[in-house]
Amino acid sequence: MTLLHTPPEVSGQEDPTAAVHAAAARARVAARELRSATRTTKDAALRAMADGLVAATPAVLAANADDVALAQAAGTSPALVDRLTLTAQRLAGIAQALRDVADLPDPVGEVVRGSRLPNGLQLTQVRVPLGVIGVVYEARPNVTVDAAGLALKSGNAVLLRGSSSGRRSNRALVDAMREALLGVGLPADAVQAVPGDTHASVQALITARGLVDLVVPRGGADLIQAVVTGATVPVIETGVGNCHVYVDEAADVDMAVAILLNSKAQRVSVCNAAETLLVHAGIAEAFLPVALAALAQEEVTVHGDAAVVAAAAGTGAGVVPVTEADWLTEYYSLDIAAGVVASLDDALAHIARYGSGHTEAIVTGSTRAAAAFVAGVDAAAVMVNASTRFTDGGEFGFGAEIGISTQKLHARGPMGLTEMTTTTYVVVGDGHVRP
Amino acid sequence: MTLLHTPPEVSGQEDPTAAVHAAAARARVAARELRSATRTTKDAALRAMADGLVAATPAVLAANADDVALAQAAGTSPALVDRLTLTAQRLAGIAQALRDVADLPDPVGEVVRGSRLPNGLQLTQVRVPLGVIGVVYEARPNVTVDAAGLALKSGNAVLLRGSSSGRRSNRALVDAMREALLGVGLPADAVQAVPGDTHASVQALITARGLVDLVVPRGGADLIQAVVTGATVPVIETGVGNCHVYVDEAADVDMAVAILLNSKAQRVSVCNAAETLLVHAGIAEAFLPVALAALAQEEVTVHGDAAVVAAAAGTGAGVVPVTEADWLTEYYSLDIAAGVVASLDDALAHIARYGSGHTEAIVTGSTRAAAAFVAGVDAAAVMVNASTRFTDGGEFGFGAEIGISTQKLHARGPMGLTEMTTTTYVVVGDGHVRP
Repeated sequence: MTLLHTPPEVSGQEDPTAAVHAAAARARVAARELRSATRTTKDAALRAMADGLVAATPAVLAANADDVALAQAAGTSPALVDRLTLTAQRLAGIAQALRDVADLPDPVGEVVRGSRLPNGLQLTQVRVPLGVIGVVYEARPNVTVDAAGLALKSGNAVLLRGSSSGRRSNRALVDAMREALLGVGLPADAVQAVPGDTHASVQALITARGLVDLVVPRGGADLIQAVVTGATVPVIETGVGNCHVYVDEAADVDMAVAILLNSKAQRVSVCNAAETLLVHAGIAEAFLPVALAALAQEEVTVHGDAAVVAAAAGTGAGVVPVTEADWLTEYYSLDIAAGVVASLDDALAHIARYGSGHTEAIVTGSTRAAAAFVAGVDAAAVMVNASTRFTDGGEFGFGAEIGISTQKLHARGPMGLTEMTTTTYVVVGDGHVRP
Repeated sequence: MTLLHTPPEVSGQEDPTAAVHAAAARARVAARELRSATRTTKDAALRAMADGLVAATPAVLAANADDVALAQAAGTSPALVDRLTLTAQRLAGIAQALRDVADLPDPVGEVVRGSRLPNGLQLTQVRVPLGVIGVVYEARPNVTVDAAGLALKSGNAVLLRGSSSGRRSNRALVDAMREALLGVGLPADAVQAVPGDTHASVQALITARGLVDLVVPRGGADLIQAVVTGATVPVIETGVGNCHVYVDEAADVDMAVAILLNSKAQRVSVCNAAETLLVHAGIAEAFLPVALAALAQEEVTVHGDAAVVAAAAGTGAGVVPVTEADWLTEYYSLDIAAGVVASLDDALAHIARYGSGHTEAIVTGSTRAAAAFVAGVDAAAVMVNASTRFTDGGEFGFGAEIGISTQKLHARGPMGLTEMTTTTYVVVGDGHVRP
């Protein structure tokens, strides 16, 4: 029996693993139905979900108010409370995002490649849904809706495991979306909240081999590491970004300063912000005084090597000596590590040693330096004369993203709808057998 | 210092994990060099490796004779000894396969997609090597050379861990290939045998996070499961194939028999051989007597459900009652499970329950049945009126394969050179910053 509303919480007596696996089994049944849902049906569902969320505004805001009150009572920081808080306007924005997903092309059924083989067999590689996707994430309730919308559009059932601080909000959002699915004749179990909010429920989700096709963790480095090392189902690692800006000898100083400031300070709490500045020795004298003054203006603390500390003398910029740990740190704050390198090769060696493979940027007027940097850096994205902040599904024109993959398998960089599919080879013959 | 020849075996006193990690670190250095090697250089290396192997025939055959003698003394089965045995002719064939890989296009540098973004940024997604690939495999020495050739062509360094029974042969092959690499100016450490032949060395390889980008197990189900569940580095699961042939109500009986025989009996020890026959009830009476007689002729033992057992009466075909375990078994032998289903939907439900997601075939003259089967089956390959045996990199025109992936992430189905790469987004601007 399909339950319209999210099943009640798992009580202390029940086995959380069994409850999670039962939810995953229901998701698999729903996924088999979603595989062949047409784009028309899926887009109607997304629009019905958007309408349903707006109609459910009072219930969602009431549930959210309870979450917020509990978070405040527990002494949660104002920044985190703000991320948790929904308003009618924010909810309308979240609903609009679902309509935007409906406007995107359907990745399912796309022919990736194909050919007629010498023996006459027709070979076609075609995109199909993955099946069941689990998403483990932190406070923001908008992820609940974003992830459900992207999974549905790509033909996948989704198991949502948000943080316990947003539990009431997430369940209200999920209930509204499930009701909308039923309204267009799709299975409600295509969108489910993972039952239980203990660690055991996360563990059950990430070890459900044969039931869950992919888990995507979204959140801080601790959450991601816990999921990646604890999972036995396939995982895509997202969002760890120790990004570098390398200012080449042949850079335009004004351009380099603008790209540095944008990469570091336009928004500090994101994975595509820059955490380290590397400067070619040949331009350090011209670039560093201007750059350090500009960073000081933006209240950025520079963790500099000896050459940077020396260049800071008399500029009034706040430079503290860099440590080995700084080169490895993703600050998520108005801090940046900075050093002078003797050559582009030394910059590449530094990046190979300390980078996380997210985004690396070079500022240069030299085609040869640009080509060497692109060839030498092993990362999801390489920027030439552009801010690291551009590594983003929306900026890349993918319309939406489930996360930014920093691993090399399956998806690397912003993961859009295409990356939420796999493929099948369809081979059509007329009685063909192998000789 | 780069060693020309494979370093000596790890002695009991040394730490096998440290030795494997040191080899992986050398592979990473080599991989950085291979990233930007041109196709011309890589193809020259492949041809030099082929020539080097032929030139090393006496040394390789001597080493192989030692492996074979030890295997025979240990009572190894003649079939396994045959797989282990090299001859001058077999070695020439292995060398020729390297020249064939040289003739394939280079996957590195292929532009996967690209566009000019609204703000003028030029976005290009381009294929790049994965980095360091580990291969864990069983007796056949040809895998040593095949895997090295495919890795090199796709710009990756490779760590080869064959079974201990082929240790001497593999080292002789690796030594010849390393010498050839040096001869064309590429790092010898691009091709290495994993030091040590204990289980600890496999464990060190598959848990070398940050040093190894991908491990591909090639061998029996036990080997694959051990690697998949023990690994913390990314793995691609290969080669488990519980493949079904479904004979639809609208099938041509002669075509169905031919496809069934080819799928089951053309070669039994491979993952794309059929292990289960499902027959629509509407054609069972016409099809089963012919099919069972033909299977009997090929000495196939049929494990049948009640309807199949009844149909066998008087045909002289060897039918034994099927068990639940039979439906799950990959026989690798002249055995097949067989059952009658009431409908195509029942066939799909059976396949969803027992299939391994490798290859599923339908024989039908009905476009509607073919479409429903293709839409309803979740597998790497779906055959319409063709033998399951066609799921193969060579047959698909990929030229060569490192294995057949039965997982959904990254690669599904035959893995050619393309699947041994990842991508980087290259973004070129002119001082672009995010507003």
